[in-house]
Amino acid sequence: MTYVVLAAGTTATARIEGISAAGADPDLMVHTPSADAEILAYGEPTAAPVTPVSPTGCPTPAAVTRAVREAVGFDLSIVDAGLARPTTAPTVELGVEPGTDIRETVAVPDAAEIYDRAYTYGASLPDDRLVIGETVPGGTTTALGVLRALGEPATVSSSLPANPLERKRQLVEQALSASDLEPGDCAGEPLAAIRAVGDPVQPTVLGIAAGALEAGTAVTLGGGTQMVAVAAALRHAEVDSPLEVATTSFVAEDQGEALTAACDRLACELTVTDPGFAGRDHVSMARYCAGEAKEGVAMGGALSLVPEGELAGVRDRFRTVCTRLGIDATREGPDGP
Amino acid sequence: MTYVVLAAGTTATARIEGISAAGADPDLMVHTPSADAEILAYGEPTAAPVTPVSPTGCPTPAAVTRAVREAVGFDLSIVDAGLARPTTAPTVELGVEPGTDIRETVAVPDAAEIYDRAYTYGASLPDDRLVIGETVPGGTTTALGVLRALGEPATVSSSLPANPLERKRQLVEQALSASDLEPGDCAGEPLAAIRAVGDPVQPTVLGIAAGALEAGTAVTLGGGTQMVAVAAALRHAEVDSPLEVATTSFVAEDQGEALTAACDRLACELTVTDPGFAGRDHVSMARYCAGEAKEGVAMGGALSLVPEGELAGVRDRFRTVCTRLGIDATREGPDGP
Repeated sequence: MTYVVLAAGTTATARIEGISAAGADPDLMVHTPSADAEILAYGEPTAAPVTPVSPTGCPTPAAVTRAVREAVGFDLSIVDAGLARPTTAPTVELGVEPGTDIRETVAVPDAAEIYDRAYTYGASLPDDRLVIGETVPGGTTTALGVLRALGEPATVSSSLPANPLERKRQLVEQALSASDLEPGDCAGEPLAAIRAVGDPVQPTVLGIAAGALEAGTAVTLGGGTQMVAVAAALRHAEVDSPLEVATTSFVAEDQGEALTAACDRLACELTVTDPGFAGRDHVSMARYCAGEAKEGVAMGGALSLVPEGELAGVRDRFRTVCTRLGIDATREGPDGP
Repeated sequence: MTYVVLAAGTTATARIEGISAAGADPDLMVHTPSADAEILAYGEPTAAPVTPVSPTGCPTPAAVTRAVREAVGFDLSIVDAGLARPTTAPTVELGVEPGTDIRETVAVPDAAEIYDRAYTYGASLPDDRLVIGETVPGGTTTALGVLRALGEPATVSSSLPANPLERKRQLVEQALSASDLEPGDCAGEPLAAIRAVGDPVQPTVLGIAAGALEAGTAVTLGGGTQMVAVAAALRHAEVDSPLEVATTSFVAEDQGEALTAACDRLACELTVTDPGFAGRDHVSMARYCAGEAKEGVAMGGALSLVPEGELAGVRDRFRTVCTRLGIDATREGPDGP
């Protein structure tokens, strides 16, 4: 049986202006992972005071993952990987705290302890296959940080249509410097990389994946460039088991050859799923096609579970979820209706 | 959509000798709700150091509920209603602590606060119908306590084939006396009854049910006499919405007319489901037919969700779950194979 695990956490890095679309206002964005968890668990936010929908009508990828869950069904665990705000979604407690700004000396003080607890948890799960996703605003910046610290060719995607990549690069250089590191200094030491310039979701996913693989469970990292960073961390931890990265067509289009090359380099099978949003008369689908959000909250991983021919049913449920989240499907986006 | 909520907690009352079969040894029994939660979430204990199977080969009712989940599927939330031991099952945190021995002055100090938080949670759930179950060793004794304090005709079932009812009655008299209460003193004040002689699972279930009913959600209390006590508490709280109690044929046989009469009195619809264990060649099914365990962990509620004609599939999954829990199906029980 396949089991979906969502690691949901936060990092103060997300408060840096202009790097994430996962909630427009930093004071609200900190609630996004809690809201995402509730959308996956219950279909809408239950305790979180925000509904993560962009001003243009693009909902959090949690809406797509939930639509898949409603259409085809899957068992789910949400792991608290450093939530900063309460949630009434059911969560697995591994004692993970929110991460600090990567421009501080240490970003995830107890990265090694988190990894150990997550490893034990991953190894304990009896399923045949795990799909692991994440929700952490600012996560592509911390992904870039870890890739640079490991000395891996570094490029990441963005939840914004225009990727503020230069800004992220500059932040990561500052972050490495604050930790007294040069790019590549953490090669072979992924937990040192995460401790210095990562976020708490990373050692959680890394540990769960490593533990599950050790126990003989197949692992799919459901996500885009953030999961490429985790895959790199796994390889640097000398985990050489087969590994799949399952992402969306939106990330694949954005990243082009770089994504394929990264997966080849890391010996990861790459699965790309197109939810078929193009040309549909729905503002949220149009926003995804325009490059907003792109991926997250296990969206690509969940889509990879949809049997051939059942994507239309997922789109139907997506419409329902969007309505439930208060989105008027017919309103005009900035690029027309 | 139907949603299943399991309230999992503990009370020191369970440590009193001879009142519960939910784990033979009190030092192990305290882990039972955590193990039950993991069995429901993952199919087997993942972190809990015990597998709740009686010496005769009767597994926890969690095994039946899990079998229903594997056979027909349902979404599930486990609420931490006072777990005393860690679990890696995903849980909803409402800040509930383990209960104290009912022979102390106060059994659930913050019953009112638990009720309020649970009410908010229950009201926030968007589902059409909730099935609420419980796992709390010692729970029939605390149910008897609450029924007596409310002045309701009081009889309860047991997880043991021979119900130590006299022992429970004696304990409840001691408990009422320690709280300076006479039977019926808490009529109309269910939270006072629970605070004095109940357990923390009760205000959790009471609050979730009351909040959900207020929000227009249909509520099924999935369980036996413990849920009758919650139904009585709801009626004493002047909640007069329609209410269903869904239990197993094992409780119904044990309780006979008393159960029907109690449900009539409380204006609850009673649904009884027989999983069809009689005459099957499986030690665990035989033990249920011999009156062990009977109900719990939402077993009756889950069975009520099984569509006509699909119970055979549930029994198949139950065999699988039993094997996974290490039960040798063919071994002889005390009453033969």
